[in-house]
Amino acid sequence: MENVAHKKNGVNVDQLVGTIDAVKKDPEVADFRFRARTEWLGGGHCRTTFQNFYGAKQEDTSRNVPIVVEGDEPPVLLGENQGANAVEALLHALGSCLSVGFIYNAAARDINVESLTFDIEGHLDLHAFLGISDKTRPGYQRIQVNYKVKADAPKEELKELCDYVQKTSPVLDVLRNPVTVNVEMI
Amino acid sequence: MENVAHKKNGVNVDQLVGTIDAVKKDPEVADFRFRARTEWLGGGHCRTTFQNFYGAKQEDTSRNVPIVVEGDEPPVLLGENQGANAVEALLHALGSCLSVGFIYNAAARDINVESLTFDIEGHLDLHAFLGISDKTRPGYQRIQVNYKVKADAPKEELKELCDYVQKTSPVLDVLRNPVTVNVEMI
Repeated sequence: MENVAHKKNGVNVDQLVGTIDAVKKDPEVADFRFRARTEWLGGGHCRTTFQNFYGAKQEDTSRNVPIVVEGDEPPVLLGENQGANAVEALLHALGSCLSVGFIYNAAARDINVESLTFDIEGHLDLHAFLGISDKTRPGYQRIQVNYKVKADAPKEELKELCDYVQKTSPVLDVLRNPVTVNVEMI
Repeated sequence: MENVAHKKNGVNVDQLVGTIDAVKKDPEVADFRFRARTEWLGGGHCRTTFQNFYGAKQEDTSRNVPIVVEGDEPPVLLGENQGANAVEALLHALGSCLSVGFIYNAAARDINVESLTFDIEGHLDLHAFLGISDKTRPGYQRIQVNYKVKADAPKEELKELCDYVQKTSPVLDVLRNPVTVNVEMI
């Protein structure tokens, strides 16, 4: 018999099931520490590098070279468009999280996904960031995510899947609910 | 007299002051809508494009080509490292936001910054994402930001500046405080 990985939507379902089993046997396998280093480059421009993280009880060494993302502002916000800005990057984090959650869970439910797109828009009032008013919040007032999916399951089942994804999405969780962020000079 | 822009830390301070004045005169100038489109590419891999946004009372057209960011998982989480994952991207959004906030406000206070780096780490328990337990939250349990800055101001003044930046940071706000996120199938 051939030893071929069982893949669905590009997801190795055997590995997914194996990961879940490993966590059930040893909860510590689920403890992850993700890391990023953001360096200011000039004006609104910065660069973030991602390389190591801790997870599955060890330091990950799979990235020989770091993954790099640039951040910048558009000219209207005093930058040069050398990257998406911080609040746009946040929308990417959200879309990326919903995408992975949807696809992995679809694979686990044996649903074949053909295409999946998230259009995300966030409303932001710059008064607080500019230091003009403390009556409006600095961050997004609301975020709207519209998604379109083609898959071999009825619409209601896909909506139910998305409801489940929303309950288990790490990025959605830290947006909808408060998270402790400690900022310290070293 | 030469008409040279007054720059500090790479920030056009004249434009910064002009933006603040424009918002004071017409609050609508501060209404922004940022947008992102995330497309699933296969497995844990996705691509987000950023091009237009609304702000300063018009659609922005400064980006002739879209800005693109890739997202993926590392192999231990069933991906191929074709980008940072969603929760790492979130750390970039945070670092980028703090960088811009620090630099723009330093410029406004006439502080010269030589270097600025943020090392960020988030603790995440995968139980909820993997659907094994609903007793732990899906997202980060806590995020630690350590920053290092070289600038021509006393340490206490830089700490006070960072406290102010934290109060006005859009990304920090939506992490520390809840934001409404509406997810809809179209």
